[in-house]
Amino acid sequence: MITHFSDLPRTNAPLANGKGTVDATELLSIPDFLGKGRLFKRCILKPGCSVGGHTHKGDFEVYYILRGEGTYDDNGTLMPITTGDVALCRDGEHHMLENTGTEDLEFIALILFSN
Amino acid sequence: MITHFSDLPRTNAPLANGKGTVDATELLSIPDFLGKGRLFKRCILKPGCSVGGHTHKGDFEVYYILRGEGTYDDNGTLMPITTGDVALCRDGEHHMLENTGTEDLEFIALILFSN
Repeated sequence: MITHFSDLPRTNAPLANGKGTVDATELLSIPDFLGKGRLFKRCILKPGCSVGGHTHKGDFEVYYILRGEGTYDDNGTLMPITTGDVALCRDGEHHMLENTGTEDLEFIALILFSN
Repeated sequence: MITHFSDLPRTNAPLANGKGTVDATELLSIPDFLGKGRLFKRCILKPGCSVGGHTHKGDFEVYYILRGEGTYDDNGTLMPITTGDVALCRDGEHHMLENTGTEDLEFIALILFSN
């Protein structure tokens, strides 16, 4: 089954008390995860916007950066993140992602359950 | 933990008896899936190359097309697929993806287990 991008569910809202909003498009629905996870989205952060810092409990998240520049908080350590980077936040870990560049920061986010 | 793209495991080999090879970069390792799935990759098919037709049993796969043009076999029905499209191949279903365009066909592939 093919779904065109414009027909996918899309939101633009603050996330985890971050700055501004996250333009998030759902690539897999909750029912279609068959209980293995809860989020698979294509996300865009405009410059200055962020996914606020949060800790994962009972699940883990992968970010794959498609384009742009940002700052990633990896368990309290801030580091630059850029196109092609993969960030893994394991169960119990804390992360944050902010677009500190001048262009859109586009990435794939995947959250799977730990148990 | 951030891993730069050039440090990710990368293969370039035929897949499912397809035409040519698939340039596949691993975004999440098998151990890091914690048993929820077995593949999360950034893939590139050069023009004329394909992921050969195959049936999923015990798992399901999502393709998210990042760029390019191709033909997708959705359970025996050939259809065009292009940038932004999401193709879901559920457990028990059959699919195939061929780059029938003139530019690279770049996509994200995710395979999760059904049970």
